[in-house]
Amino acid sequence: MIPGPIEFTPDVLRAMGMPTTSHVAPNFIEVFGQALEDLRKVFLAPNGQPFVVPGSGTLAMDMAAANLIEPGDHALVVNTGYFSDRFAMILERYGAIVTHVHARAIGDVPPLSEVESALQSLKPKLMTITHVDTSTAVGANVKELAALGRKCGALVIVDGVCATAGEEMRQDEWGIDLALTASQKALGVPPGLAIVVAGPRVMETYKKRTIPVGNFYADWTEWLPIMQAYEARKPSYFATPAVNLMWALHVSLKGILAEGMEARFSRHKKMSDAFKAAMAALALKQVPVRPETSATTLSGVYYPPGVDKGVLKFVDEAGVIIAGGLHPAIRELYFRVGHMGAVTGSDVIATVAAIESGLARGGYKFEKGAGIVAAQKGLL
Amino acid sequence: MIPGPIEFTPDVLRAMGMPTTSHVAPNFIEVFGQALEDLRKVFLAPNGQPFVVPGSGTLAMDMAAANLIEPGDHALVVNTGYFSDRFAMILERYGAIVTHVHARAIGDVPPLSEVESALQSLKPKLMTITHVDTSTAVGANVKELAALGRKCGALVIVDGVCATAGEEMRQDEWGIDLALTASQKALGVPPGLAIVVAGPRVMETYKKRTIPVGNFYADWTEWLPIMQAYEARKPSYFATPAVNLMWALHVSLKGILAEGMEARFSRHKKMSDAFKAAMAALALKQVPVRPETSATTLSGVYYPPGVDKGVLKFVDEAGVIIAGGLHPAIRELYFRVGHMGAVTGSDVIATVAAIESGLARGGYKFEKGAGIVAAQKGLL
Repeated sequence: MIPGPIEFTPDVLRAMGMPTTSHVAPNFIEVFGQALEDLRKVFLAPNGQPFVVPGSGTLAMDMAAANLIEPGDHALVVNTGYFSDRFAMILERYGAIVTHVHARAIGDVPPLSEVESALQSLKPKLMTITHVDTSTAVGANVKELAALGRKCGALVIVDGVCATAGEEMRQDEWGIDLALTASQKALGVPPGLAIVVAGPRVMETYKKRTIPVGNFYADWTEWLPIMQAYEARKPSYFATPAVNLMWALHVSLKGILAEGMEARFSRHKKMSDAFKAAMAALALKQVPVRPETSATTLSGVYYPPGVDKGVLKFVDEAGVIIAGGLHPAIRELYFRVGHMGAVTGSDVIATVAAIESGLARGGYKFEKGAGIVAAQKGLL
Repeated sequence: MIPGPIEFTPDVLRAMGMPTTSHVAPNFIEVFGQALEDLRKVFLAPNGQPFVVPGSGTLAMDMAAANLIEPGDHALVVNTGYFSDRFAMILERYGAIVTHVHARAIGDVPPLSEVESALQSLKPKLMTITHVDTSTAVGANVKELAALGRKCGALVIVDGVCATAGEEMRQDEWGIDLALTASQKALGVPPGLAIVVAGPRVMETYKKRTIPVGNFYADWTEWLPIMQAYEARKPSYFATPAVNLMWALHVSLKGILAEGMEARFSRHKKMSDAFKAAMAALALKQVPVRPETSATTLSGVYYPPGVDKGVLKFVDEAGVIIAGGLHPAIRELYFRVGHMGAVTGSDVIATVAAIESGLARGGYKFEKGAGIVAAQKGLL
């Protein structure tokens, strides 16, 4: 129950372990082509250009920055934590002049008014939004932020690494110009695929570049014809795709679309609300300062007074693995729980029960069972 | 029997399909640490620094170029085909001034004397050698070329994508400063891992850089502490590793070392010689112009007069998949067969038999069985 790699379904793991096909075998070309088509449906981006490349989520961020930034371009980073800082570092590597709009506190999001003023005064080429900051469980108000970005003429880039296919995200409708993610989160595929869906305004900006893309491996000049070829069901070659991961992606996307995006968003919200209600029932404070700044796909929860990260071991011994803190300023003070992908009510109940077990062994006083009852009420 | 992705062993595929662990789980840290140690043994590079990163073989080339080249550096490319051209493109992306020493004909390697003169006149920062050019089945004389490079003060970079763990390569003894490969060839792991082993002279050169690495995702500044942490059996995080592929790499490396590098080199030579003898017995001409310019891990073979790539379908229908041509100048004139990794004598015989079947259906006149008898003589 860590915030990725998550637990994968048996059919996805079966695809991972299948004898590997050639990257130009007709059945693999079909699977790759369908995966690209299905990604448009999952991102709700009917006009998007999907890219799937062997690599991590950081490569997806790198691909966005490297293909769009030219030296001297202004970029605005809506900064909600660790991964917003990372996006700024990457943008700067390709010559961007980065301005941050920070949240006033850890667990909060920057005020929309400050983002709007910064957009109006800077007129940046692009803005980045971390949909879910995996380090703090803060969820950004992507819809409003994207609308501001569009209004001020900035390309809207959303890092959906811990969000896409779990958190509500409507790329086309919300005016998101580029959304990116990694395979191992709510998309439900083991780690190793960087995924980007670029909208028409992004592809136009890319085509108007005056200097070559700074990063060879991430260069759309090489990858775009490959994606187009797979979608046209034609063999092509630039770099060998991660064949087994692509078969697994194909399986997972079919499962996601069989559930349906609306049902999937609702299920994630229900699991998240149930888990968060359980934490509240145990009198545990969350890192996000308000429900509106909370992610759906994961929760960040402070240890109660008198208890520290030593309880993670007890939770593990009760049968559930959860994650420690990641944000440098509060690393030792909180834990993180992912609830995304194929997560069920049983998983939520079992996780809350294991956390209760860990806290009890750690010496924390609380009404035993209060957490699981609160979760159950949210689930029924 | 294509030159990668190859056929993987059941235990490697089983590791691929295992439930995914956390990237900081103690058992995964141990597996990653052992894989790094085992890579040193497979590359015969006791002082090398291994890097294993989610990505394709092209990312491994990109990593070498991005971390070593600063604008204006001279680089010499020993050009034996398609993948040598690619290395030049990548080096140029980071500002290198590239000089090529070309072979005089497709299927040949550049004369050592020409390489030596170029090294002496240019004094390049580095030279690149494509150990096996997958497009032509040409194998470069890495040992002699590396010695020349060292003598002239160039860093010796070997692209071992279609070679490492199949073709004889002794990184430390031969004075190779950096060797790189991808997982899906003779290393025997499905595609998705870029692998680099950097020697001490390369790491010193990298540390003396005066400008940041041009490619964020490939930057050793980020990856070196991660590799060191896994080897010290400590948790760390930069970008999520391709967890299942790492478990599979661990399994494959143990198998490779259980066979032993000397035995593995011999087996590959034997399989290759048997296959090439079969092609000769069928009066088929090979793309490499001489045995000394032939790769061990794959063969490139011209179609006989009157036969074209239509026979690939017949070979497939006889039960074996082989690959068409890749080098643009002769693409339609030849086919390619990989014989590396877990390849056995049975595989070689079955492949030759299927090729005989394809050629017979294509109308080529030859003594039926001559190929498999020649292969069998080489195998016994």
